[in-house]
Amino acid sequence: MDRIADFLFEVGMLKRTPRTGWQFLAGAEQESVADHSFRVAVIAMVLSRLEDGGIDADRALRMALVHDLPEARTGDLNYMNQKYVRADEEAAAADLTRGLPFADELDSLMAEYRAEETAESIVAHDADQLELLLQLVENRDAGVPGTESWVPFVLKRLRTENGRRLARRILDSNSTRWWFDQDSDWWVRGGKG
Amino acid sequence: MDRIADFLFEVGMLKRTPRTGWQFLAGAEQESVADHSFRVAVIAMVLSRLEDGGIDADRALRMALVHDLPEARTGDLNYMNQKYVRADEEAAAADLTRGLPFADELDSLMAEYRAEETAESIVAHDADQLELLLQLVENRDAGVPGTESWVPFVLKRLRTENGRRLARRILDSNSTRWWFDQDSDWWVRGGKG
Amino acid sequence: MDRIADFLFEVGMLKRTPRTGWQFLAGAEQESVADHSFRVAVIAMVLSRLEDGGIDADRALRMALVHDLPEARTGDLNYMNQKYVRADEEAAAADLTRGLPFADELDSLMAEYRAEETAESIVAHDADQLELLLQLVENRDAGVPGTESWVPFVLKRLRTENGRRLARRILDSNSTRWWFDQDSDWWVRGGKG
Amino acid sequence: MDRIADFLFEVGMLKRTPRTGWQFLAGAEQESVADHSFRVAVIAMVLSRLEDGGIDADRALRMALVHDLPEARTGDLNYMNQKYVRADEEAAAADLTRGLPFADELDSLMAEYRAEETAESIVAHDADQLELLLQLVENRDAGVPGTESWVPFVLKRLRTENGRRLARRILDSNSTRWWFDQDSDWWVRGGKG
Amino acid sequence: MDRIADFLFEVGMLKRTPRTGWQFLAGAEQESVADHSFRVAVIAMVLSRLEDGGIDADRALRMALVHDLPEARTGDLNYMNQKYVRADEEAAAADLTRGLPFADELDSLMAEYRAEETAESIVAHDADQLELLLQLVENRDAGVPGTESWVPFVLKRLRTENGRRLARRILDSNSTRWWFDQDSDWWVRGGKG
Amino acid sequence: MDRIADFLFEVGMLKRTPRTGWQFLAGAEQESVADHSFRVAVIAMVLSRLEDGGIDADRALRMALVHDLPEARTGDLNYMNQKYVRADEEAAAADLTRGLPFADELDSLMAEYRAEETAESIVAHDADQLELLLQLVENRDAGVPGTESWVPFVLKRLRTENGRRLARRILDSNSTRWWFDQDSDWWVRGGKG
Repeated sequence: MDRIADFLFEVGMLKRTPRTGWQFLAGAEQESVADHSFRVAVIAMVLSRLEDGGIDADRALRMALVHDLPEARTGDLNYMNQKYVRADEEAAAADLTRGLPFADELDSLMAEYRAEETAESIVAHDADQLELLLQLVENRDAGVPGTESWVPFVLKRLRTENGRRLARRILDSNSTRWWFDQDSDWWVRGGKG
Repeated sequence: MDRIADFLFEVGMLKRTPRTGWQFLAGAEQESVADHSFRVAVIAMVLSRLEDGGIDADRALRMALVHDLPEARTGDLNYMNQKYVRADEEAAAADLTRGLPFADELDSLMAEYRAEETAESIVAHDADQLELLLQLVENRDAGVPGTESWVPFVLKRLRTENGRRLARRILDSNSTRWWFDQDSDWWVRGGKG
Repeated sequence: MDRIADFLFEVGMLKRTPRTGWQFLAGAEQESVADHSFRVAVIAMVLSRLEDGGIDADRALRMALVHDLPEARTGDLNYMNQKYVRADEEAAAADLTRGLPFADELDSLMAEYRAEETAESIVAHDADQLELLLQLVENRDAGVPGTESWVPFVLKRLRTENGRRLARRILDSNSTRWWFDQDSDWWVRGGKG
Repeated sequence: MDRIADFLFEVGMLKRTPRTGWQFLAGAEQESVADHSFRVAVIAMVLSRLEDGGIDADRALRMALVHDLPEARTGDLNYMNQKYVRADEEAAAADLTRGLPFADELDSLMAEYRAEETAESIVAHDADQLELLLQLVENRDAGVPGTESWVPFVLKRLRTENGRRLARRILDSNSTRWWFDQDSDWWVRGGKG
Repeated sequence: MDRIADFLFEVGMLKRTPRTGWQFLAGAEQESVADHSFRVAVIAMVLSRLEDGGIDADRALRMALVHDLPEARTGDLNYMNQKYVRADEEAAAADLTRGLPFADELDSLMAEYRAEETAESIVAHDADQLELLLQLVENRDAGVPGTESWVPFVLKRLRTENGRRLARRILDSNSTRWWFDQDSDWWVRGGKG
Repeated sequence: MDRIADFLFEVGMLKRTPRTGWQFLAGAEQESVADHSFRVAVIAMVLSRLEDGGIDADRALRMALVHDLPEARTGDLNYMNQKYVRADEEAAAADLTRGLPFADELDSLMAEYRAEETAESIVAHDADQLELLLQLVENRDAGVPGTESWVPFVLKRLRTENGRRLARRILDSNSTRWWFDQDSDWWVRGGKG
């Protein structure tokens, strides 16, 4: 029990850790690693529903949820940082989970995510990229210039067909627009730009 | 696909929705509903590992992840607000998921959470309360006065034995303290206060 | 005296309560309910000076000043929230003022505002809408996209002729521009866009 | 109409102008001049209700509402600043209202406030000091050290008997505490410390 | 030693003092006087390297570093404020350094900066203006409207030929753009717009 | 000139880079790397004045000013991060200054700082630690718990006798207290606790 409480306090560091990539997009909205991880997990749940068969949706979700836990110890490193900085995520993950009754499961989820070989880990990686894309489009639609130069990098990293289709749809949206459908008395966000 | 993108933009509202309960604790750290939901999901994963048998851990996790999605439409209502305000969470949930290929699954998860009858939903509710308790203790340890008057309300709402044991351990921690174990060259957060 | 101090502490909640409508306009400036109420009161003072005769300008001002006090107990609900949430503003107002020596006066002001039937309450409502319009234009001029879709809703709600004329003038302004008149050695904000 | 819109945009500067006194109290909550002015106006309304007879309550309220308008042009100067900086509030007030149809009224309100001779202006000054005291106590109760050294300065500046009585009551409060009265099913903020 | 510690605490006020000029540019990034002073010092180091001979580069750097120290006592006054407010920077500087073993040196640096007569002080003033220009361009490239109306004022105040050349180059940049040179595996910020 | 503008834009990244160590001290004030570097430079100027002879005060100042420039490319890594992350500061420094007319001087300053062998670099390192100590004491005096556990680490790293003496004096101060000396009509910050 003692180690579990400590672990959960440490998970809370992700609420206080800003995603550092946005430092490069002047005027962009700030977010925490926890903010990001939350939507990555929701996307993983959605994406794995779209894959037909053969995929363990719950494993993809758990992987998405924990994929950034090592950042509680390494910090969040943006692409520029990563050119100069080498993080030992494996050691960070091991120290984070050491002594937990379910340490093996967490370590195995994070290792599988890093390896990016299984179908589940590929879905979790796509969820990670799609979350970034949603946030880029939200910043684009808030009038932040320069987001378009990041988009090709995101698209190139997507590996599932559904992820690529969803990405195209996200890019075509106007995320700030809300439709109020008078007939159904119902609001919808987004819609074709 | 169109509806999925719209849904994911709307999920992003939770990054911009502050948890309003902290308005009552002057000096407390601010957090978003997404920040909160992220750690609730991690706790649900942990708690359901501790329950022996009979519980669908993955269902508890999915429920914890989505439990606050209706707040994208209702906003976050603190305890004072709830005395004067009646939110139709069911309608909000229905409009949020309308037209999604997996709307039924999401609606069923949110309904089960609201009913708080199944073992999985009880674990998800305990995860929700434990997340609040962790944040209260983090604020207490940051020198914010007044947190102690909230604790009994949280403890009273916990329903699993593991949740209660974990709560006691969290209260006994000093969340700002880090131990550096020289022998193992390893840092631990928390530890007895 | 005891109740008065308590009441004034509670009024302070409005400094900590963000106006939630701006969550929908990505990139928009944040403001508190107190920030908003301050300018609403100034506008009410101005607008009632423009109405000729028959209007109790001081009553309109007092009404504008207190019109959002119930939000100290209900929270601020944006248009989306209001579709799913029903707030009992009357009960909130009653509990807020209970026991105050001037409770009757405050209750009567808030009730008259909610009823929106007297000339004074109509001016106060127009002041509330014009404050929103000023902030929309300030955000528009700060490069925040999407403000224009809100404008028709504001215009439609205005009920006085002076309010409508002032609204048109506000929309025609460039709120970020300052004129420095060399002759008079004097700065003016705004001016035709 | 043109000048009115410009004037109202300029009033909006007070939402973006931080009260600079709090820079000296590390850890204190930030607030805008508009936040402050809002509660000053509410206090003036309350205080003038307590004075028996002879006082024009509405004039005191209007004076409280506009008392910091010149800061839209001079900025907010804390006590340290005022030792080195001389602000021509009169000129700022004159330029702010120049050309408005009700410029004379506004100028006269601000001049009367500065002179601090009439009963109404004394009530408005006390409201200004009591607002500062409420905020000091809120910071004190949030665990911010050092607030007590400011209190004597505030008390010394109070000039009405009701203002002094209210100040003592505010100092005796615990602003973070809420009472829930089970019988009346009603929450009260504050109460004896 | 006692006075030195006090002095360094007071220097820390500049971290908490916002640059007030940005209140006029809605949507602009906030910065502290310390943030600004840091880059002014770097620019002074750079600019004095470009001047050939005759200039004491280290004196220019020290002058740039301390040029805003009096603002720890006067606050930061924007151009609008300065029309109505007269700050006695000399008295503020004297009180700030009083009793320090190197008070004379600091006073002399600040006095020379204010006089703006020596080559070194002219370089320090240009560094101050160029820092403002860089920040204006960063805001311009972040989509903040209205920056262009400030640029002529900055350019007019530049006095060195190198300062003017650098200013033109800064205006021609796109500060949000990064070049990744594939051959050298190297990132560069800016580059022609 | 082109490279200089690019370099200065990149220096601006330090205004947007938060010092990550404060994530561990809940409730601590946030600051940028530029905020920190500014006061480090002022301290280096002060400290080198106290050293008698043999030290190039201007070189120490320049070194202090540029010591964190590589963080524009590596990000700021706190002590926990540094256990898992290896930053190639040398490569970051080289890429940052590449092509600048005074690249050699900057590289040499940063290399000398990293080596920490010369008297000037030792003073600059002490300035870096003293700045951290000042900020720790400011947070301690703002009621942030837990600062005392950091102090021994700072003290251990100090290498000059003057640095150690100044540190003791800083620890003995009450940074939030201001003395107003009635005789001299003069305010002083700090003073014995």
